[in-house]
Amino acid sequence: MIFDPSRRWREHGYKPDFAGILTYGGLPLTEDAAELADFDVAIVGAPFDGLAGLDAGARWGPRAIRAAGVEHGPHLEAGVDAFERLRIVDFGDAPVIPFDAAASHRAVEETVAEVVASDTLPLLLGGDHSISLPAIRACAAAHGPLGLIHFDTHTDTGEDELGVRVTHGTPMRLLVEEGCVDPRRYVQVGLRGYWPGEAEMGWQRERGITSFFIHDVRERGIDEVVRRAVATIGTGPAYMTVDVDALDPAFAPGTGTPEPGGLTSAELLGACRRGAAGLALVGADVVEVAPTAVGSRDPTALVGDRIVREILTGIALRRAG
Amino acid sequence: MIFDPSRRWREHGYKPDFAGILTYGGLPLTEDAAELADFDVAIVGAPFDGLAGLDAGARWGPRAIRAAGVEHGPHLEAGVDAFERLRIVDFGDAPVIPFDAAASHRAVEETVAEVVASDTLPLLLGGDHSISLPAIRACAAAHGPLGLIHFDTHTDTGEDELGVRVTHGTPMRLLVEEGCVDPRRYVQVGLRGYWPGEAEMGWQRERGITSFFIHDVRERGIDEVVRRAVATIGTGPAYMTVDVDALDPAFAPGTGTPEPGGLTSAELLGACRRGAAGLALVGADVVEVAPTAVGSRDPTALVGDRIVREILTGIALRRAG
Amino acid sequence: MIFDPSRRWREHGYKPDFAGILTYGGLPLTEDAAELADFDVAIVGAPFDGLAGLDAGARWGPRAIRAAGVEHGPHLEAGVDAFERLRIVDFGDAPVIPFDAAASHRAVEETVAEVVASDTLPLLLGGDHSISLPAIRACAAAHGPLGLIHFDTHTDTGEDELGVRVTHGTPMRLLVEEGCVDPRRYVQVGLRGYWPGEAEMGWQRERGITSFFIHDVRERGIDEVVRRAVATIGTGPAYMTVDVDALDPAFAPGTGTPEPGGLTSAELLGACRRGAAGLALVGADVVEVAPTAVGSRDPTALVGDRIVREILTGIALRRAG
Amino acid sequence: MIFDPSRRWREHGYKPDFAGILTYGGLPLTEDAAELADFDVAIVGAPFDGLAGLDAGARWGPRAIRAAGVEHGPHLEAGVDAFERLRIVDFGDAPVIPFDAAASHRAVEETVAEVVASDTLPLLLGGDHSISLPAIRACAAAHGPLGLIHFDTHTDTGEDELGVRVTHGTPMRLLVEEGCVDPRRYVQVGLRGYWPGEAEMGWQRERGITSFFIHDVRERGIDEVVRRAVATIGTGPAYMTVDVDALDPAFAPGTGTPEPGGLTSAELLGACRRGAAGLALVGADVVEVAPTAVGSRDPTALVGDRIVREILTGIALRRAG
Amino acid sequence: MIFDPSRRWREHGYKPDFAGILTYGGLPLTEDAAELADFDVAIVGAPFDGLAGLDAGARWGPRAIRAAGVEHGPHLEAGVDAFERLRIVDFGDAPVIPFDAAASHRAVEETVAEVVASDTLPLLLGGDHSISLPAIRACAAAHGPLGLIHFDTHTDTGEDELGVRVTHGTPMRLLVEEGCVDPRRYVQVGLRGYWPGEAEMGWQRERGITSFFIHDVRERGIDEVVRRAVATIGTGPAYMTVDVDALDPAFAPGTGTPEPGGLTSAELLGACRRGAAGLALVGADVVEVAPTAVGSRDPTALVGDRIVREILTGIALRRAG
Amino acid sequence: MIFDPSRRWREHGYKPDFAGILTYGGLPLTEDAAELADFDVAIVGAPFDGLAGLDAGARWGPRAIRAAGVEHGPHLEAGVDAFERLRIVDFGDAPVIPFDAAASHRAVEETVAEVVASDTLPLLLGGDHSISLPAIRACAAAHGPLGLIHFDTHTDTGEDELGVRVTHGTPMRLLVEEGCVDPRRYVQVGLRGYWPGEAEMGWQRERGITSFFIHDVRERGIDEVVRRAVATIGTGPAYMTVDVDALDPAFAPGTGTPEPGGLTSAELLGACRRGAAGLALVGADVVEVAPTAVGSRDPTALVGDRIVREILTGIALRRAG
Repeated sequence: MIFDPSRRWREHGYKPDFAGILTYGGLPLTEDAAELADFDVAIVGAPFDGLAGLDAGARWGPRAIRAAGVEHGPHLEAGVDAFERLRIVDFGDAPVIPFDAAASHRAVEETVAEVVASDTLPLLLGGDHSISLPAIRACAAAHGPLGLIHFDTHTDTGEDELGVRVTHGTPMRLLVEEGCVDPRRYVQVGLRGYWPGEAEMGWQRERGITSFFIHDVRERGIDEVVRRAVATIGTGPAYMTVDVDALDPAFAPGTGTPEPGGLTSAELLGACRRGAAGLALVGADVVEVAPTAVGSRDPTALVGDRIVREILTGIALRRAG
Repeated sequence: MIFDPSRRWREHGYKPDFAGILTYGGLPLTEDAAELADFDVAIVGAPFDGLAGLDAGARWGPRAIRAAGVEHGPHLEAGVDAFERLRIVDFGDAPVIPFDAAASHRAVEETVAEVVASDTLPLLLGGDHSISLPAIRACAAAHGPLGLIHFDTHTDTGEDELGVRVTHGTPMRLLVEEGCVDPRRYVQVGLRGYWPGEAEMGWQRERGITSFFIHDVRERGIDEVVRRAVATIGTGPAYMTVDVDALDPAFAPGTGTPEPGGLTSAELLGACRRGAAGLALVGADVVEVAPTAVGSRDPTALVGDRIVREILTGIALRRAG
Repeated sequence: MIFDPSRRWREHGYKPDFAGILTYGGLPLTEDAAELADFDVAIVGAPFDGLAGLDAGARWGPRAIRAAGVEHGPHLEAGVDAFERLRIVDFGDAPVIPFDAAASHRAVEETVAEVVASDTLPLLLGGDHSISLPAIRACAAAHGPLGLIHFDTHTDTGEDELGVRVTHGTPMRLLVEEGCVDPRRYVQVGLRGYWPGEAEMGWQRERGITSFFIHDVRERGIDEVVRRAVATIGTGPAYMTVDVDALDPAFAPGTGTPEPGGLTSAELLGACRRGAAGLALVGADVVEVAPTAVGSRDPTALVGDRIVREILTGIALRRAG
Repeated sequence: MIFDPSRRWREHGYKPDFAGILTYGGLPLTEDAAELADFDVAIVGAPFDGLAGLDAGARWGPRAIRAAGVEHGPHLEAGVDAFERLRIVDFGDAPVIPFDAAASHRAVEETVAEVVASDTLPLLLGGDHSISLPAIRACAAAHGPLGLIHFDTHTDTGEDELGVRVTHGTPMRLLVEEGCVDPRRYVQVGLRGYWPGEAEMGWQRERGITSFFIHDVRERGIDEVVRRAVATIGTGPAYMTVDVDALDPAFAPGTGTPEPGGLTSAELLGACRRGAAGLALVGADVVEVAPTAVGSRDPTALVGDRIVREILTGIALRRAG
Repeated sequence: MIFDPSRRWREHGYKPDFAGILTYGGLPLTEDAAELADFDVAIVGAPFDGLAGLDAGARWGPRAIRAAGVEHGPHLEAGVDAFERLRIVDFGDAPVIPFDAAASHRAVEETVAEVVASDTLPLLLGGDHSISLPAIRACAAAHGPLGLIHFDTHTDTGEDELGVRVTHGTPMRLLVEEGCVDPRRYVQVGLRGYWPGEAEMGWQRERGITSFFIHDVRERGIDEVVRRAVATIGTGPAYMTVDVDALDPAFAPGTGTPEPGGLTSAELLGACRRGAAGLALVGADVVEVAPTAVGSRDPTALVGDRIVREILTGIALRRAG
Repeated sequence: MIFDPSRRWREHGYKPDFAGILTYGGLPLTEDAAELADFDVAIVGAPFDGLAGLDAGARWGPRAIRAAGVEHGPHLEAGVDAFERLRIVDFGDAPVIPFDAAASHRAVEETVAEVVASDTLPLLLGGDHSISLPAIRACAAAHGPLGLIHFDTHTDTGEDELGVRVTHGTPMRLLVEEGCVDPRRYVQVGLRGYWPGEAEMGWQRERGITSFFIHDVRERGIDEVVRRAVATIGTGPAYMTVDVDALDPAFAPGTGTPEPGGLTSAELLGACRRGAAGLALVGADVVEVAPTAVGSRDPTALVGDRIVREILTGIALRRAG
């Protein structure tokens, strides 16, 4: 069963943003895995933020990103309309439980597994960054060890955080250790600030993980960095994870652990599109959007929505050849 | 086709507020009029605010009221669970057009007419107060001239506003003039401030409209005022319209024309329930909710949601006999 | 020279709040003392907050109160339209200097003196409460020792605050000591919280100042308290000073030293009107409005505006006999 | 080692709120249990919100309550200065871990146990309501089964929440089941809304728990309700727990699960003081303060601070006989 | 009659921003067309936002831009003080009517026509972008078909929006079709996002309209883009329209349809000045400022004010030769 | 006596930001000058904003900057952990008095003098920019005339502001006139906007002060500007003062006199580090942070904290050689 929230406005061309049942981009909705086979991409919410150490609020992220959407249309720079080229569906939210991280991660993993099983690409809306752990696990279960392009301030490769092994600061270490992410095909972009320290960086170096710090971006330009990242990750199956705190807080103030001195929206948006166009993505996520205002008045949800659109545009570009 | 957003959480008892596709109270959703026959009440959004003279924002009201909802359960004072007693569906939003008041009003009228045609009670979420005009028109078309209980700071019986005949300050005059509302069965509760003047009050008196000012409420108590209102409206078909600006701005800050010195939440919530329990309602609306914060952090959407619940509880009490 | 900001909308009946040059209530404006003789009341802004000890922001109060205004009309309870009965002018702001308390107080005193010299009643918009010191001085210079009705959480009769003699916590002591306020005709309403202590209360008792605490209001009702206040102040010339922190923070969140457990808007609004109607006011002020939102979306400026209207309505009632 | 943050301002009388190291009420600080013996009351923060189901943010509560404080002085109604009568210390925060509920509860329990061991009364600042579980456990370990006066919208006696046994909706059931709270000496005040249902209410009735709903408060008055609560709890050791959502959202907007139609600040403040004066308190807490603004501009932290002061005043009154 | 709001502060040098009657930049005010002849530039507010499709609020724009102003002085980069070089007056607001787009547009057209008739340059403060339609019409009526430099995310050349012909998304098409704007002398700068599509872009190409997308700006630099725009528009009469959503939402969050990835303030400010200096401007506007905070704390109104100042500086530079 | 707020979390590695007694970076605290000798750097708050002409709020700056801190760790670009390399203590706040500028300046001067006397480097958190006056005086008293690197929108070299000699717009002129700052070793970076005028710029030129305008930064790059500044200031003792309004309001919205078109966070952060590493700093301050949100959700306090960290990192780099 597929529900189309834009049907009532069909004759007018498009649905106003504030009206009608809320789905990502006003897209059709289903929560029935049997329907997924007809779709190229499924949007999946993961509204869980119980493993964010500084500030919560990303539980409201999936709904906020859905509420920030606009009418469909061609990407003015790329010249392609992803909503026309791709068959995209909103698959609702994974059935997370606020106070139960393990149950929530299971819910995300099972929901993503349903998408993957239909040969549909899952594009997740977080939630704190810990939700990438079950999401990537589900993708790797189907595709084997993945390449990973990871936009973030932080490496999220802590061994633990305050003694806890699974938090929003540790998923990438666990994924590498579990064999879900191939460290030689794992590239981080945007690192800055005061974490992690030598222990984590040493662990990363031993495994051959590639890190582009924000000063690397300043020196080489974001386009060159993305080119190198794509080259490093290569042609195998890959995943893109975008923590909005890769952006400077001026561009994404509503996030769990903001860090000044980050990417501009223009840089990150182009990087997501070009990365998605250059890689064989089997999944993606946009995480750590913690909204504080309504609709497109929330700048973080707005840019979160645009990151999703750039990823979709990149996928469309790639499929278009 | 009916979509149930709570299905994925069924085994856990209820859906967390911030998760899952957004419908009023996590209720089932349909936009298919053919499905309405199975339901007692249909929630209908009317996200139009183009006729608000001071401040817009109520276009975001229906979505905000839906996002402020909680799990189901019994009303702790009334001892009845409306979600168990009544079959309630979310019928989505009327297909309004932001810059076109006439088209938006037509959309509301047609959508409500579909509900009424199924013998289902429409409960609207505004939108500015002008949306009561098409909503009540549609109800009166089916039921004849209606009694009206009207909670508000303002009478909304202006002849025009700045020379414009249909605005959020004039619907009640038009409804009386068109014969949709029977002025002798029309009761206003909560009037205060500096509008309207003698011309409008004279027009009201000539037609036998009953007005309870806020000072009447202070003197007699809200329960007595509601009792008198119910007695005045009597047993015929009736409609309840609730402008949240009937509340003091302390309780409902996000509204188009706030006026200090108003009702408390406790007063208005009880009044809505008792009014709904005492009257033969054929329709109802809650209007002028203009949210500024996310989820239940928005106090106006929160109390707007609770007003809807009180109306539903009152209807359930009445049907329970 | 008198400037009328509503002229361009004359044919439409009234000026929308957000449009046109900003004056109190859309009233005519002059900064020429020679024009004052034709007016009963002059609104005077005193945008100075340099003597607020906890939080500043009341420098934006006069503009915010002006921006919260609505169209004219009759007070729905009192049945009188002050804007019709009284000739009211906006006399602009006293030329205060942000970092210079003494110069600012001089500016307020001279501006109020100009108003008083024209036999026009000054109604000031603060500013922190220290501005009542020069305002009342100017009134007392013309009328002799004044009665004072003072709505506030605090007595503002400190001998000093952190060693400073003139602050927003000391004006009332200075005014009594200077002979501008007659302590036997000085009544405080709304006191609560944890200040002042025995030293100040003893000083007050010695001079015969009358204090109504918030628990007195709860026990006797605000109407009875106002009746007693009016009786105590008697028929001589009097001044009304309203610190919006007399209200509970639910009703006036934007103020320098909020204190929970205060008056409701309904209580304070009626009290101001009845007090103004019962006393021989020669001046009045509304202070400590520190806005944080735009237009009538700011609840404190909104209720500040309504306090001004109630005072004007009270004056109109008294003059009407 | 005791640190006194007000020392530098000693000659000026008091420390400005925004200046100096932040402790509750500018009180002396220690984190050394050996120092506690000299104090009657120890303020203990419990900044953990990981078990809040709807909205997080109470992790910022203890700091916000500390930042909302004012200078010391006598309670203007009660006529007693708790800061003079009682020796009060800020004992800092329990060493909670954001993503680890069990470790956080252990930390709270151990910290409170240190206070209790010194024969000092612990007064906790939450955190979500789950922190009352370890706090009351620690008190009951020393004093045996406790009477409990519980101000709240909700009973917090769920058997589980979404399948999870320990959340902010279940502590009171666990405490009764563990024998820490004597159900016949357990009184709830302020219940309203749509939770819990018959199962929980039946469980409560079987154990003899006393519930005052908000409509009971409206009918009998808060003073009479508190009188009955005190009589029911009697003279044995007791604990007071105050969830700020007992207040209407107008008075406490920043809280995890706000519910319209609640207590006013005036009602709750008096109830806390009278309850504390009437009971043999061995501990107390104020929970679910989730601030969104700075300093005393945050209304919820402000009223949270005043609740603490009323409890302290009540204790002082009782000790004064 | 000319009113000077800074007179009372004359001896102090300038008027504090928060004090005195609010005019643009503290400039003299008149609403009398007969006075315009003495002025080079007239500031005109157009507080109408009824044709904004996503979010309203720009009705508060003109007042907010006026409130964000600072003292006069030389532009530190350009070395010219526009307030000294140009005689500038605040001509108040056009008498718009909130619910009546046609009447509001007539009011704007007539008010601008009065300015143009005095050979004074109108500089409008919006309002939504639809107000450029009557403003440019009035200018073209006097000067013939105009060149147009248009800073914006969107082309605003829709044939209709949701079936409505005149909205904030269509004025530029109407102006070209009506012959008010010469399409060969029409240059757009800053285009990005997902609108418009091929139909509109085709229409533009057929008419010879020049578009600089944001990626053109990134590649060539804003200075080169402005140089080309100026060259394209040439020496004939021209108009500058600046939609603040040309800026990235980081720099202008308060606007009707924000789009990430836009210009920085530094880029747009310089572009406006250089464009104004290079063109034979006969009019200009700054639109879609929808403020949410007070005074210069509102970043969008603040940058809106600075855009106006850059335009004035550019005009001063040009007149200085 | 030294208080260590992180002790309770020692075994977990670090203290969560929202927990524990608030000190800068969770560092040890002392208010005892005798303890300073063991430390390289002392953080000193100066929470005074009484000389800010447009908007107050910086009195909340020191606390907000402290609350925005994160765990320690190496600077990811510079590769040095200042918290390991330097012995840093939080010395609390200078005992300022809100309404008494002279007393507050004395308090700042004496507190800084205590730090300087221990051969410890004072790093101040403002407060408005006037607090640099006493801070630099105290440093110059010990070290003789200082070089000064000054990041700001404004020169702060006014002769007076509205007739007042000591304000946040005049400290730098006073410091030069008093001989505390050597004008030939005084470099300003980031100037823009409309102030000051020719008089002040002429005064600066006569004394040989070096100014880099924002357009100089755009043309030459921030690194080159800092290089020249360091060369100009040379090897003698120097002070760094950072007004956060040097940043564009997108990056630092909460400040007293924001000015669009400023530095990015990335530019200013690197400049502070490189400046500190290149100069013989004897003191530093970060001023004009006026927070409006809680914890790291306040972008201005967050970047204020990071500026402090960059200065500390620069000092550590220099000491490391």
